[in-house]
Amino acid sequence: MAQKPSIPKGTRDFGPAEMAGRNYIFDTIRSVFKTYGYAPIETPSMENLSTLLGKYGDEGDKLLFRILNSGDSFSGIDFSEYHIEGDNYNSKALSLKVCEKGLRYDLTVPFARFVVQHQNEISFPFKRYQIQPVWRADRPQKGRYREFYQCDVDVIGSRSLLNELELVQIVDRVFRLFDVNVLIKINNRKVLTGLSEICGFPDKVVDITVAIDKIDKIGLEAVEAEMKEKGLDDAAVEVIRPVLSLSGTTAEKIEVMRELMNGRSASGIVSDTGLKGLEELEELFGLIGAAGIEQEVEIDLSLARGLNYYTGAIFEVKAKDFPIGSICGGGRYDNLTGIFGLPNMSGVGISFGADRIYDVLKGLDKFPSEVKSTTKVLFANMGSDELKYLIPIVKGLREAGVSCEIYPESGKLKKQFEYADRKSIPFISITGGDEIAAGTVNLKNLSSGEQKNFSKDDIQAILDFLIG
Amino acid sequence: MAQKPSIPKGTRDFGPAEMAGRNYIFDTIRSVFKTYGYAPIETPSMENLSTLLGKYGDEGDKLLFRILNSGDSFSGIDFSEYHIEGDNYNSKALSLKVCEKGLRYDLTVPFARFVVQHQNEISFPFKRYQIQPVWRADRPQKGRYREFYQCDVDVIGSRSLLNELELVQIVDRVFRLFDVNVLIKINNRKVLTGLSEICGFPDKVVDITVAIDKIDKIGLEAVEAEMKEKGLDDAAVEVIRPVLSLSGTTAEKIEVMRELMNGRSASGIVSDTGLKGLEELEELFGLIGAAGIEQEVEIDLSLARGLNYYTGAIFEVKAKDFPIGSICGGGRYDNLTGIFGLPNMSGVGISFGADRIYDVLKGLDKFPSEVKSTTKVLFANMGSDELKYLIPIVKGLREAGVSCEIYPESGKLKKQFEYADRKSIPFISITGGDEIAAGTVNLKNLSSGEQKNFSKDDIQAILDFLIG
Repeated sequence: MAQKPSIPKGTRDFGPAEMAGRNYIFDTIRSVFKTYGYAPIETPSMENLSTLLGKYGDEGDKLLFRILNSGDSFSGIDFSEYHIEGDNYNSKALSLKVCEKGLRYDLTVPFARFVVQHQNEISFPFKRYQIQPVWRADRPQKGRYREFYQCDVDVIGSRSLLNELELVQIVDRVFRLFDVNVLIKINNRKVLTGLSEICGFPDKVVDITVAIDKIDKIGLEAVEAEMKEKGLDDAAVEVIRPVLSLSGTTAEKIEVMRELMNGRSASGIVSDTGLKGLEELEELFGLIGAAGIEQEVEIDLSLARGLNYYTGAIFEVKAKDFPIGSICGGGRYDNLTGIFGLPNMSGVGISFGADRIYDVLKGLDKFPSEVKSTTKVLFANMGSDELKYLIPIVKGLREAGVSCEIYPESGKLKKQFEYADRKSIPFISITGGDEIAAGTVNLKNLSSGEQKNFSKDDIQAILDFLIG
Repeated sequence: MAQKPSIPKGTRDFGPAEMAGRNYIFDTIRSVFKTYGYAPIETPSMENLSTLLGKYGDEGDKLLFRILNSGDSFSGIDFSEYHIEGDNYNSKALSLKVCEKGLRYDLTVPFARFVVQHQNEISFPFKRYQIQPVWRADRPQKGRYREFYQCDVDVIGSRSLLNELELVQIVDRVFRLFDVNVLIKINNRKVLTGLSEICGFPDKVVDITVAIDKIDKIGLEAVEAEMKEKGLDDAAVEVIRPVLSLSGTTAEKIEVMRELMNGRSASGIVSDTGLKGLEELEELFGLIGAAGIEQEVEIDLSLARGLNYYTGAIFEVKAKDFPIGSICGGGRYDNLTGIFGLPNMSGVGISFGADRIYDVLKGLDKFPSEVKSTTKVLFANMGSDELKYLIPIVKGLREAGVSCEIYPESGKLKKQFEYADRKSIPFISITGGDEIAAGTVNLKNLSSGEQKNFSKDDIQAILDFLIG
């Protein structure tokens, strides 16, 4: 007997119940994207390694899944060239020799590649969404998979802050549809640049950003320690500290920051970039006010986000009633396509974390009940005459959009009922000789117990009973 | 300047227009599957090579994309063990050493693996559909890709012919929704087995099937020549010949075949398996009659289909008005999960060829017009006051399900109109100071030229204008 089969570690099978929840999430998000004029694209799962390498840092390069070239891939290689000592070989160089392709690591780099490659076919501003799996050879652990879906929405080729507003509106709408309360946090990367300037360490903006990005996880003191480790002095930390715990309204926070950027900090340095960032935040919050966003939106000057390609607004979304970290994030980038030779294309985007959103909806019991059952009615199979009587009736119901099953085998009703029960099918029909003689169909609501016979031609009455 | 980027040969990018067509196809098929009680599953893109190897023949093994193990994958290997001569190495053995995983080659083997692995969680009969990409390292050519979607629907754990009927009903319904006329051809593998028995070469059933499978491509004479090459004698070919060109009604064809299987062929041999196959065909066509299938369905005794795991009904679907070969195919198998240690699980399934269906719908101009444009209305951007006036109005329309865009930059209207034109947006709104003063919204139907102003609060009137 063969061994029970398994799947590679870090990957998952999704059965019908999980798929129903996942499709509900994707369908909802997709329907909102569509009302904002975003259109789908898909890129190949494999990209040339030359497209992927060097885009995610050294660590990222190591996490790429590489695909062995087809055919006689190991002949013609002089392995001695790659030999180090003993039975150690230079795996990095050898893998480049035998692998030309790798699996997509995220949707951002393929999107940038797509825009550059198809720039002459695209109408800019280009509003696209993309929902596809990505692969990372990370060490699998709870909540971290080697294959997972990303769900990205981006507009490229427009600097207007209306785009930032619309992303906030999309987040607001999606989570209202999910009936989940979220907090949308917004900052601007230019303000972080300004902060590095006014504290006197303009070349440390990346170190400062990376440190601040950890504030939720490690706390203010550890962030300050990390900044000092990276070479900031006490005076610089003194300038940054109050910013990270700023309170008050959006207008108040912006006002305090404007003072600081205008040379009123201890250093007396003025930052034009910082002032520009504050102006953008002010304009965006003005639009947010006009739009009547229903979820909570706040300015968070400690929000950093690790990715270095952001140059303007940055976003992060958290569920208010379920502790799971960030469930959406994104921001504006000014030079994403520059790596492929198309400079000066500003864009802004946001990514929805489908796995975490699934956990939130499940944890808060927010999946609608329709999501939980796929079939509305099970017609019991009473034999071949009954079957031929039912087939056209069931066809009519299906074409009216009702999901129906006829149990495929006639035989013990108990077994048929158990099937309905295991699949959470809410209605059952036992239509036999009496019903055929009367030209009727029997239907029973399994949760209320209500049972009725309907004329087989009165589809409308049947629909009302099933839906009402 | 970087070189213009590209994608691996045999792979494709799908832009918004192609995605709209593809999503229409998948959504339609999925909606029909759902009304028949089929539920989605998804399996990982990567499977262990031990799951995939040996399931598709030697040729298939060569076409698997293999994934290089992560980490220091080449150290610890004694390459001399794999050396053949000169700089030739045993690539097959070496690739097994450095690759444990491969990309999914089809959806059938992963489905069988899924059923065996999750047999204790599944309610049988298990009705599942699966729409995911598969990968094959085939030589790319017109219409043949290295990454393409399969769209499979199967029920496993039931021998009832009602399942075969429902697959025919699904095909009928899907292509009626697409407004495409198809011919559904049905045969039964047991009849082919019977044929090999009555012609006296029961051990040649695979050779006979493979030869007959080519009849559409190479013609009757070449099929006969191939059968002789495989060792059949003239007398055997004489027995098979009339069957391959049988005409008449379904009942007439079955009657002729029953005579032959009952020992009335030149050989005088009786085939119980052949008779059983005819009985199944007769029962299935009885159900098809009861179901009122609207597309053309015919019995085709020359229909073979190459795959050897079929054991009962086999199906093939062709578009009647567009020459492109088979667009759906499938059949019943009795032992698919046996390879993974779960014997005696009979199932039946069918696969929709999404790429070919796309070509058919495009070739026959059958994509609905809604599929061609994603955005219904473009609101021109006349400046920041107009923008703030429009934002809540547009929000209301979006929440009513209308896809709207506000052009993100204010500026030349000509550029904004060009954007609407390139995206085939059917309505435009130029709402400026006069409209704001009057509390109205302007809308223009770009195809009819009709233009009207609506009270900004009368969403219903606006919807009627946009949809009516």
